[in-house]
Order: sequence, then structure tokens, then C-alpha cells
Amino acid sequence: MTDREPGLGSAISFVTLGVTDLARSRAFYAAMGLEAHPRSNEHVVFHDLGGQIFALFPRAALAEDAGVPGSGVDAGLTASLSVNVSEESEVEAILQRAERAGGRITRPASPPPWGGVRGYFADPDGFAWEIAWNPSVALDGDGRVRL
Amino acid sequence: MTDREPGLGSAISFVTLGVTDLARSRAFYAAMGLEAHPRSNEHVVFHDLGGQIFALFPRAALAEDAGVPGSGVDAGLTASLSVNVSEESEVEAILQRAERAGGRITRPASPPPWGGVRGYFADPDGFAWEIAWNPSVALDGDGRVRL
Repeated sequence: MTDREPGLGSAISFVTLGVTDLARSRAFYAAMGLEAHPRSNEHVVFHDLGGQIFALFPRAALAEDAGVPGSGVDAGLTASLSVNVSEESEVEAILQRAERAGGRITRPASPPPWGGVRGYFADPDGFAWEIAWNPSVALDGDGRVRL
Repeated sequence: MTDREPGLGSAISFVTLGVTDLARSRAFYAAMGLEAHPRSNEHVVFHDLGGQIFALFPRAALAEDAGVPGSGVDAGLTASLSVNVSEESEVEAILQRAERAGGRITRPASPPPWGGVRGYFADPDGFAWEIAWNPSVALDGDGRVRL
């Protein structure tokens, strides 16, 4: 991290692929040696890779969550990178910083159904970043997550 | 990891975005608080996020490296996830496993210009995974990388 202002310097908490067939993708990654986390269900699949979560989420649901429904195969829909922060106020601060840096807020800081607060911005190419504060996801001192 | 066969169980070593304007993206992420690693240059930008590298690479170059040139805005071109392995033989083993699991090898294990050996497979949606053995990238016991 280069400065004290809230930003992207900590670890990427979740790498999420927006998939077209969740069961097929779950089976593929199981065959590749990844074990689904017990918090996985019929709507989302999590794999804990040592403090980073590799998640599978239906593409349309990811797009809807990111605030960019209907945008087809844009990069911002097919995958997202998430940074979980330890203070709720950082969510809005980082989104505002992204806007000043030339990004675009696609979903303002707001509460998702699963708790906490999250927002999304798109980088100059449209890649989706989620900034999330979620008390049910533990963060260690290095910013690594535990479901 | 669920088994002993080489697979995807370890940490994701690199998250790479295939960007359309490297200088613009580098400036954006600098404004977001990320410091470019000294090994960055005019062809690629690296950011070390605590043992995981967040990289920016021109989209066409990423597609070419992944063995899928000319495939436009496919998911497999706009981003890739890399797992660095400690044994050269694991590259081929994991690619073969991906093929058996229903993936598609887009670049067989082969030496890139920057050393080591790497190959790519596409998952059922076309998401690109690189499996790399690179003696110039240090791996700790948890599979975290250091450039």
C-alpha cells in the first residue's frame, strides 16, 4: 500500500467467476481438486484457498449484484474481485476514490441480503471490483478472509 | 485440497487483468493506492498484494500467451488466474487433469520467453487458468509468491 487513504492495497478477498451453469462448474472444480466450503449452497459455491475465497456465482446473479444487469458478456460481469475491509466507512471511501481516479460506481454502498454493506466500481476497462464490509467474514491482520 | 493428485488446491498466485490501455490502467490502480512492483515495465505491471500478484497485461498479449489469440472479448482473454507450482512436472499433470475434467488445454506446457514452463487451460465457461513453474518466482510453504 502506498498511502494511508482507504484503497486497494490489501489482499483480494474473493475472486468470483460468473458462470453459466453452477452445477457444471462446481463439478469441474471438484474434479480439479477443490473442495467446496460447507457454506456453499445451490446459489453460490465457495472454495477457501488459504485465506482467499475462490467463488462461483451464476453470471446473471453476479451482474445483478454488481449493478450492471443486462450488460451481457462484459468483463465486469463474467468475474469480479472483492476486497473485504474491516471498517464499514471504508466501503464508501474506496468507491469515492475510484470515482475520482476515473472509475465508475456501478452499485453504491448498500446492504446485500447476506449482511454487511458492499458497493461496486468498474475500472477503466469495466472490470468489476466489490468493496465489502461483512461482519460474518473474519479478516486476519494481513487482510486474509475466513468464511 | 481434497486429494494428492496435482490440482488447483493451492493459492492463486497471479490475478491478471487483460487491459486495453496499460498506461491508463497503471495510473488508475496507482490512484487507488497500489504501488507498482519494481519488476514492472512497459509490457506488464505487477502489484504485490501480500504474496499474491495483481497484474495488468495488454489484452492481446494475454490472449496470445494463453493460446487464444483473436477470440475477442471472451472471458478467457480479459482475465486469467495463475497457479504457480513448485515442480515442473505438475504443469503437465494439472493440464491433463483439466482435460479429463472437461476443460480444454489452450496452450500445452511450454517455455515462455521469461523462463520456466507454463500452460493454460480453459474451464467450461472459457475462463483461463495458467499453471506455471518459474524458478525466478519464489513460493513459500503456503504457495504464496514473491517476485
